[in-house]
Amino acid sequence: MPQELRAVEWTGSGLALIDQTLLPHRTETVVVRDVDTLVGAIQRLVVRGAPAIGAAGAYGVAIALLQGEREDWKQGRLREAVGRIRQARPTAVNLMVCVDRVAARLPEGLDAVLEEAAAVQREDVEGNRAMGAFGADWLLEKVSPGRPLRILTHCNTGALATAGWGTALGVIRELHARGRLEVVYADETRPLLQGSRLTAWELVQEGIPHYVQADGAAAGTILRGEVDAAIVGADRIAANGDTANKVGTVGVALACADAGIPFLVAAPTTTVDLATKTGDDIHIELRDEAEVLEWAGVRTAPASSRGHNPAFDVTPGRLVTGLVTERGVLEVSAGELPGDRLQ
Amino acid sequence: MPQELRAVEWTGSGLALIDQTLLPHRTETVVVRDVDTLVGAIQRLVVRGAPAIGAAGAYGVAIALLQGEREDWKQGRLREAVGRIRQARPTAVNLMVCVDRVAARLPEGLDAVLEEAAAVQREDVEGNRAMGAFGADWLLEKVSPGRPLRILTHCNTGALATAGWGTALGVIRELHARGRLEVVYADETRPLLQGSRLTAWELVQEGIPHYVQADGAAAGTILRGEVDAAIVGADRIAANGDTANKVGTVGVALACADAGIPFLVAAPTTTVDLATKTGDDIHIELRDEAEVLEWAGVRTAPASSRGHNPAFDVTPGRLVTGLVTERGVLEVSAGELPGDRLQ
Repeated sequence: MPQELRAVEWTGSGLALIDQTLLPHRTETVVVRDVDTLVGAIQRLVVRGAPAIGAAGAYGVAIALLQGEREDWKQGRLREAVGRIRQARPTAVNLMVCVDRVAARLPEGLDAVLEEAAAVQREDVEGNRAMGAFGADWLLEKVSPGRPLRILTHCNTGALATAGWGTALGVIRELHARGRLEVVYADETRPLLQGSRLTAWELVQEGIPHYVQADGAAAGTILRGEVDAAIVGADRIAANGDTANKVGTVGVALACADAGIPFLVAAPTTTVDLATKTGDDIHIELRDEAEVLEWAGVRTAPASSRGHNPAFDVTPGRLVTGLVTERGVLEVSAGELPGDRLQ
Repeated sequence: MPQELRAVEWTGSGLALIDQTLLPHRTETVVVRDVDTLVGAIQRLVVRGAPAIGAAGAYGVAIALLQGEREDWKQGRLREAVGRIRQARPTAVNLMVCVDRVAARLPEGLDAVLEEAAAVQREDVEGNRAMGAFGADWLLEKVSPGRPLRILTHCNTGALATAGWGTALGVIRELHARGRLEVVYADETRPLLQGSRLTAWELVQEGIPHYVQADGAAAGTILRGEVDAAIVGADRIAANGDTANKVGTVGVALACADAGIPFLVAAPTTTVDLATKTGDDIHIELRDEAEVLEWAGVRTAPASSRGHNPAFDVTPGRLVTGLVTERGVLEVSAGELPGDRLQ
């Protein structure tokens, strides 16, 4: 993706979002100027990926403020609108963190709010760049097959999922930039195909060799020795390192543990929620069963079948070899717990 | 599925196959009368599932004999045609076993060939019934939560995948018949959705409560304690218990091992290939990458992305709690190896 292209961008009067439901076939931008549209865009996954949602939520405070001025809202109405943005998706913690951070500056007015939202976005990109370097350094030190690395990833964690650059995909881009990447196995990531549609699209933009595979193929590909390490993003990380991420992630982690290869999670420290002790305390969003029973509006399962559609799963910290943050790599399964190291 | 409906049925002059590529929306039967059409039907997955392919291959010998008589083939041509049926898919071993068994009776003429093919089909159904009883007995003895069981399965192993009744789904049907089944989690089974299209369709016919879920959801569902046991079929089993089955299976097995619940494989003893020492010796069919890059003919991945599409994976015997055959249950991970017990 060209560096200038941003999943989330403030236009001066609204928030421009690349409609990720239309990729890879159409690249369209929607400009959001009211809270209902923003909340809908987050819920429909027009914008998705925990850091990108965080940035959208940050600017959402400005959208609420501007809408309130236009429509002459009372303070309570503004607070309620900001609260709805904050809760638009229940699993990601940094949406809440980002909204709260920007909302704290509401009393100072629009310029302060926009300044804080821009800082959220800028810091996310800077953090991603740092993560990319830390992750690549760690992998090249720990995994040395004497040839470029073969990396497996799940879902989309690139520029589209963040304020820019990427978390797990940022590490992959960094390896590629250093000439140390052979190929990426991108899980297609059912039911919404973020891997096939979005990660593959970003990899094409970067000229990175890759295979798209069914999610079910990941464990076999890993056990057959075709992968050197897996790296994924995160939506929420508990104090003990338990990690909520896109459904299918824990299966990748189990296969890495069985094969004895590293399983890395790349995420900004805002993803770590120290108030969440373990993964058992993470609320897992159950999405519409139609997502798994239909395809582009056409039913694939029998009419009377029910669907089970958790959006995320929880990978136990004991399976997380390394947590790559903007501050460095925590070796979680070896005992470096986020709750101890990120106080 | 009504008992009379058969995925594979001899009509007297040809082989009637339910076209499984059209389910669950259309139930159409194709009648095969020549070898090329049969080989194409096996490769396109009009008929699929190792035991059903075995039965189709058994009757395929009769098709080759009849076509040879119509077209005045020499012996070499007949042998070559039978060889092509035998090799139509490389991973399933009982296709080869069934074809060889029936082909041995070619010198005796058509009636003997048809008699042997009918015996293959009849024995498969009888074997499935026995497997169902052995598997249900074992589960009800080993897993006793004090309520009906919640079973996860992958791909389709029912009446459609066999000569009738089913292997893993036969065990599930038996549990349901005994009133000891609460719900089935059916993995959708990408890329060709045999779980969503076929297993769910069979479960609807039987009135068995079920959820269809993305393959990536299986590990999380198991680790959250929502499943009591998983049971799958097999395409080939090595002497040490390593099991080739539909891609995605080994991820289910890893999750079961981590959660401490049984992972069962239900398959006729013809699926065990004693000449195959370990899973490393099993050839894994790589299918057309379009299956994972497209959906119903519409490209989902970017045009320049490549696909990785192994049809099967290998589950190490150490992860197979029980191998359910028509002769009983071998506790493979506890050391009862097929190579020792099925000589």
